Amino acid sequence: MDLPTVCERYDERLSPGEYADVDASANGLQVGPDEGDVETVAFAVDAAGATIDAAVERGADLLVVHHGLSWGGIDRVTGLDYDRIAPLVEHDLALYAMHLPLDGHDDLGNAAGVADLLELEAREPFGEIGPVTIGQRGRAAEPFAPDELATLLESELDTGGEGVQHFDFGPDEIEDVAVVTGGGADWLEDAIDAGVDAFVTGEGKGKVYHQARDAGVNVFLGGHYATETFGVRALQDLAEEWGLETTYVDHPTGL
Amino acid sequence: MDLPTVCERYDERLSPGEYADVDASANGLQVGPDEGDVETVAFAVDAAGATIDAAVERGADLLVVHHGLSWGGIDRVTGLDYDRIAPLVEHDLALYAMHLPLDGHDDLGNAAGVADLLELEAREPFGEIGPVTIGQRGRAAEPFAPDELATLLESELDTGGEGVQHFDFGPDEIEDVAVVTGGGADWLEDAIDAGVDAFVTGEGKGKVYHQARDAGVNVFLGGHYATETFGVRALQDLAEEWGLETTYVDHPTGL
Amino acid sequence: MDLPTVCERYDERLSPGEYADVDASANGLQVGPDEGDVETVAFAVDAAGATIDAAVERGADLLVVHHGLSWGGIDRVTGLDYDRIAPLVEHDLALYAMHLPLDGHDDLGNAAGVADLLELEAREPFGEIGPVTIGQRGRAAEPFAPDELATLLESELDTGGEGVQHFDFGPDEIEDVAVVTGGGADWLEDAIDAGVDAFVTGEGKGKVYHQARDAGVNVFLGGHYATETFGVRALQDLAEEWGLETTYVDHPTGL
Amino acid sequence: MDLPTVCERYDERLSPGEYADVDASANGLQVGPDEGDVETVAFAVDAAGATIDAAVERGADLLVVHHGLSWGGIDRVTGLDYDRIAPLVEHDLALYAMHLPLDGHDDLGNAAGVADLLELEAREPFGEIGPVTIGQRGRAAEPFAPDELATLLESELDTGGEGVQHFDFGPDEIEDVAVVTGGGADWLEDAIDAGVDAFVTGEGKGKVYHQARDAGVNVFLGGHYATETFGVRALQDLAEEWGLETTYVDHPTGL
Amino acid sequence: MDLPTVCERYDERLSPGEYADVDASANGLQVGPDEGDVETVAFAVDAAGATIDAAVERGADLLVVHHGLSWGGIDRVTGLDYDRIAPLVEHDLALYAMHLPLDGHDDLGNAAGVADLLELEAREPFGEIGPVTIGQRGRAAEPFAPDELATLLESELDTGGEGVQHFDFGPDEIEDVAVVTGGGADWLEDAIDAGVDAFVTGEGKGKVYHQARDAGVNVFLGGHYATETFGVRALQDLAEEWGLETTYVDHPTGL
Amino acid sequence: MDLPTVCERYDERLSPGEYADVDASANGLQVGPDEGDVETVAFAVDAAGATIDAAVERGADLLVVHHGLSWGGIDRVTGLDYDRIAPLVEHDLALYAMHLPLDGHDDLGNAAGVADLLELEAREPFGEIGPVTIGQRGRAAEPFAPDELATLLESELDTGGEGVQHFDFGPDEIEDVAVVTGGGADWLEDAIDAGVDAFVTGEGKGKVYHQARDAGVNVFLGGHYATETFGVRALQDLAEEWGLETTYVDHPTGL
Repeated sequence: MDLPTVCERYDERLSPGEYADVDASANGLQVGPDEGDVETVAFAVDAAGATIDAAVERGADLLVVHHGLSWGGIDRVTGLDYDRIAPLVEHDLALYAMHLPLDGHDDLGNAAGVADLLELEAREPFGEIGPVTIGQRGRAAEPFAPDELATLLESELDTGGEGVQHFDFGPDEIEDVAVVTGGGADWLEDAIDAGVDAFVTGEGKGKVYHQARDAGVNVFLGGHYATETFGVRALQDLAEEWGLETTYVDHPTGL
Repeated sequence: MDLPTVCERYDERLSPGEYADVDASANGLQVGPDEGDVETVAFAVDAAGATIDAAVERGADLLVVHHGLSWGGIDRVTGLDYDRIAPLVEHDLALYAMHLPLDGHDDLGNAAGVADLLELEAREPFGEIGPVTIGQRGRAAEPFAPDELATLLESELDTGGEGVQHFDFGPDEIEDVAVVTGGGADWLEDAIDAGVDAFVTGEGKGKVYHQARDAGVNVFLGGHYATETFGVRALQDLAEEWGLETTYVDHPTGL
Repeated sequence: MDLPTVCERYDERLSPGEYADVDASANGLQVGPDEGDVETVAFAVDAAGATIDAAVERGADLLVVHHGLSWGGIDRVTGLDYDRIAPLVEHDLALYAMHLPLDGHDDLGNAAGVADLLELEAREPFGEIGPVTIGQRGRAAEPFAPDELATLLESELDTGGEGVQHFDFGPDEIEDVAVVTGGGADWLEDAIDAGVDAFVTGEGKGKVYHQARDAGVNVFLGGHYATETFGVRALQDLAEEWGLETTYVDHPTGL
Repeated sequence: MDLPTVCERYDERLSPGEYADVDASANGLQVGPDEGDVETVAFAVDAAGATIDAAVERGADLLVVHHGLSWGGIDRVTGLDYDRIAPLVEHDLALYAMHLPLDGHDDLGNAAGVADLLELEAREPFGEIGPVTIGQRGRAAEPFAPDELATLLESELDTGGEGVQHFDFGPDEIEDVAVVTGGGADWLEDAIDAGVDAFVTGEGKGKVYHQARDAGVNVFLGGHYATETFGVRALQDLAEEWGLETTYVDHPTGL
Repeated sequence: MDLPTVCERYDERLSPGEYADVDASANGLQVGPDEGDVETVAFAVDAAGATIDAAVERGADLLVVHHGLSWGGIDRVTGLDYDRIAPLVEHDLALYAMHLPLDGHDDLGNAAGVADLLELEAREPFGEIGPVTIGQRGRAAEPFAPDELATLLESELDTGGEGVQHFDFGPDEIEDVAVVTGGGADWLEDAIDAGVDAFVTGEGKGKVYHQARDAGVNVFLGGHYATETFGVRALQDLAEEWGLETTYVDHPTGL
Repeated sequence: MDLPTVCERYDERLSPGEYADVDASANGLQVGPDEGDVETVAFAVDAAGATIDAAVERGADLLVVHHGLSWGGIDRVTGLDYDRIAPLVEHDLALYAMHLPLDGHDDLGNAAGVADLLELEAREPFGEIGPVTIGQRGRAAEPFAPDELATLLESELDTGGEGVQHFDFGPDEIEDVAVVTGGGADWLEDAIDAGVDAFVTGEGKGKVYHQARDAGVNVFLGGHYATETFGVRALQDLAEEWGLETTYVDHPTGL
């Protein structure tokens, strides 16, 4: 399959245009020529030295990531940016990145992946950023005890040994859950206003503790990396459906 | 001592005016009347339900914090804001907050406190934000081994049981160290450009791992709370010098 | 009736969300807890020391005003803001404010109240601010002589003894009238472009005299306070319909 | 004297460049050719139909005003702008305007004129707008009783019959006085913070009454026109010193 | 026909309101009174000394142009602006300007005029600026050879002797053509992305050469003036249909 | 010489930091690694396919240009950007760009080069952009006749056959000359205000003709490329002084 076709197919499924005003990430093809053949696609959460090297070693023609290299434009192709872009160019490895659209997608998104894990029902979009959303909200089939939910997340997420941090300030029965993966701490306030029993995100921020405590809500921090492997894995499944060879570069960060 | 005098003395030492353009926090007196007597002063890192309640219980007239309640203005005195402001008003407890000026102060600041802990020498301001700085940089009297530095931080910081996270990607001998306390991850890039051996901050962010790895620098995450107790404790020392009764409200958050 | 219910009912009638982008006022509940019982509601044009004291004396649980305390956020709860907010908190008196939506409402609004007084017909919204309007325009059932209109306004408005100021530069028969209450001088230009015979507002501004003179239009300045009692009185009527006890705190300012 | 020379002389005395960032008025020559002879100069507070007609009748070559015609640019030379600019062009009457620099000038300014009237001593600049000031502050040689000050202003200012409005909420002895002429109501807050006994300005605004009442300060509203005749009269004196014929177009507005 | 009627008719056809957010030009009547009779209308591309003088000499009551005098407001009616506005006022010559709406109009526009010249078919709007467009795109009835297209443009456009500049980097058969008249160089990138064979505009810019060369596209620069005579001529035709006397002031600039 | 040293030396001479707020160009090293050896340096006005290919062919390690590849950040390394960056990476050719600082430099700059050509004396900076300047102004040793000046420019500038365009609207003796190279048409107005006899720039713009005609000033358009070869040639001289091998890639554009 040629490179523009792969990109177009992903673009069509993920509608990056709707997120263009709110996402600093230049979503879509970030590094690569106008044409080229794609046989093997590598997938990773982050585009960085380790994952690019792995993709090169595995002979990939395209690396698909959640966190790319262009955030509001690459000012200069120097320093770390040079070190990451040069091997892409030298090894004819194109880079495709998809940030917020892959967080919020109802079906393929990172938050949808966490919601699947928790088997949430009656789902709806959550976590507004401008006119779009980057999370999911739903109800547990049966209420979770807070510890039970923490244990489930800890056993299923790839936290790099850091575990799941739980602020146990909410109700003892968790039915209504909101999820914003990655760095979602700023949406805790919306989750509180929405009256959920628990908020699941990746990274914390200092203010989260007292917000959760004063509002009486459970907060689970599963890690930025660990909560954001779902989206790229869903894109990997698509690539396999299209008949491409794929490989997943797992590189948990402990963050 | 009357309330305006206490505020003036702190304001004079900390020069919040120089940080006014870059700090969302309304630094200085945040809640309180134009006059009043101060006998007992409570100190805490965060102004929130738990710390305000403790200050009330200990009979304080003034609560001095690093993280206050007004960040770009209080839109409405409702919800969590009401729950935090109402006890202040009802118990005649004034609130004084000092954010970035207390991070960056050469002598009283949070970063200076960490630098003291590491006995850094030849110190200079680090971590620019607009025309001011919020961190410190210095040289170890004798080089640290990375593990040694991690152990030192872990034993001295009040991390609420979460420990210190260490990304061991830098040189084996750490001499040159940059410190930005709290949420300082965005200054890792400046630390890399400055060529330090190690960067110490409070909270991480997903991107820190690969930045540190690709640049070859040690990063230590000591926790937002744990790295920011130094400033308010220094203000407590001042209050004692002025003859006021003081009390420290310790409430580690694990973040 | 509980406090959130009262607020919701007013919010539903007045649609503050439509004015959110153009109104500096934080419309809705401005000071108060998440729950509480409301038996007695006080109404006033302005939230200030005099009106808050009166509402406290009359045992009100809620004070509803046109001009509240939060205009683009309360930077600090100190000085005059402390002096106004503290008695609200101490006496469990909530504060609900509604600014532009209560100027422009077709039925309950201040401009509608003036239009009622003048018995204007064929009314339509007037006075654009962004996508919404804050005034009314209509035709007199029978043309007014300019003096007659001045006398009518002077006898019906609560001008605090300052009277109505009339710039008698327009036609001798007034049929077409535009109204923007309060500080509406900036809309005189729109009124001129619309070709009205008279413009009624509250406060003047230096430039109004020559604008009116050069354009040949009657201008009547009835006072900021005096032209803006209609909206809160209409909200008082609603509260009575809902079975609440009410009281109106009259405090004309002469402005 | 030729037109560019007159303009240059005024520009040199008034330094409009220092106010360029904060003044919407295009200060300096607003309408007129690059050259021309000036024999007679007319002076008025406002550039409008009445004052332009009077200047034409009196055979002036130049009209000098405080309030000109260009506020952030003239979008179109149509409507009222055409009606004001056309007679200037047709009668070879140039227009020179000087707004904020003529409010704040220590010597020639409107506020200085009011301060002279009150014989204030120990004067200093007051009323910051960006990096400059538009008012004056000083101490009465002997304290005024509030009524006495009101009477003095009323007898000396050209209020067009509207009188001086006095909010009698301050101390009974007035020593410390701040002055911002014209539409200075927004600086009442600074006057309160500065701890003056009285604030003198031209126009009010609805919020002034309660601000003055709650803060306990005297406020005197002398009228926009009436408090702003001093500056242009001082420029008239300069023109006479330069040997030009002058005429003052008095047109009080009652605002 | 009276002046407001002429303006209204043009406004209705050209919908300047849709371009208001993106066009610095104050489109519509730019200089003139609220009423007046129009018998003779002059048309020109630019409002400037030469064209205004010609219109005066020909006894016009109204001058209709593509490039007017108000671009984001006239700061002062002095210097060149005075020299251009004064004769308009003195000779009762009104000025009507229409910028981007007359570039992009499907039927009357400048780009449509060039497309007519090239007999392009299957036309569609091209050249987005915010929510509107200022150009046209279409297919040649029969493919042009590049030289043939250059010759056609050169023979039909009024280039003031400067000729048409052709960057011959595209395909040898030109079918798909995009047109943005005047200063359209910034839309070359959109034309490249759209995959056209040739881009026709007025003025170049330094970067155009290498953009065209690296992308492999033909670029034709016909001159700012020469590509923008079509719109005002179309407005002249309308005026004749309305029974007005008309005259075209031709003044090519060589740019 | 190693790459960082070459870059530092140029940076020191050209002070790009002073232009950072007004120059969209990312001045300095734009593409390249943190280290590397430089033996041969190529120089060109523009970084584009043709000049990069030539530099590669000539075995250069570094290409120094006036117009680089990053203007406000490279959004994606795709399309034309990929085609230009890929050969740089693949052939270990670093790219150093210097835009406005090389226009305005008193000694090395493009405008200084044109001023040298015209042997202007009593030179001073001209052409303000924010706090810096990008042009030069000076007096001819002996007055030029306009034709003489045109002929001189035409014979010395590398216009790619397009010649120099002269608007002959100014005085017959040219003494006072202002120069802004490249796209300097927007500074014609400043040149008129400064009262020069002639303005020399690279590219025109439609409005230049009538501005020059109405103001009575000579304007010479020498071409964007042709007026901007001086700066990079001056940098080439520096490199030779440092003992590096150099080569100039001449590629006139006709613009």
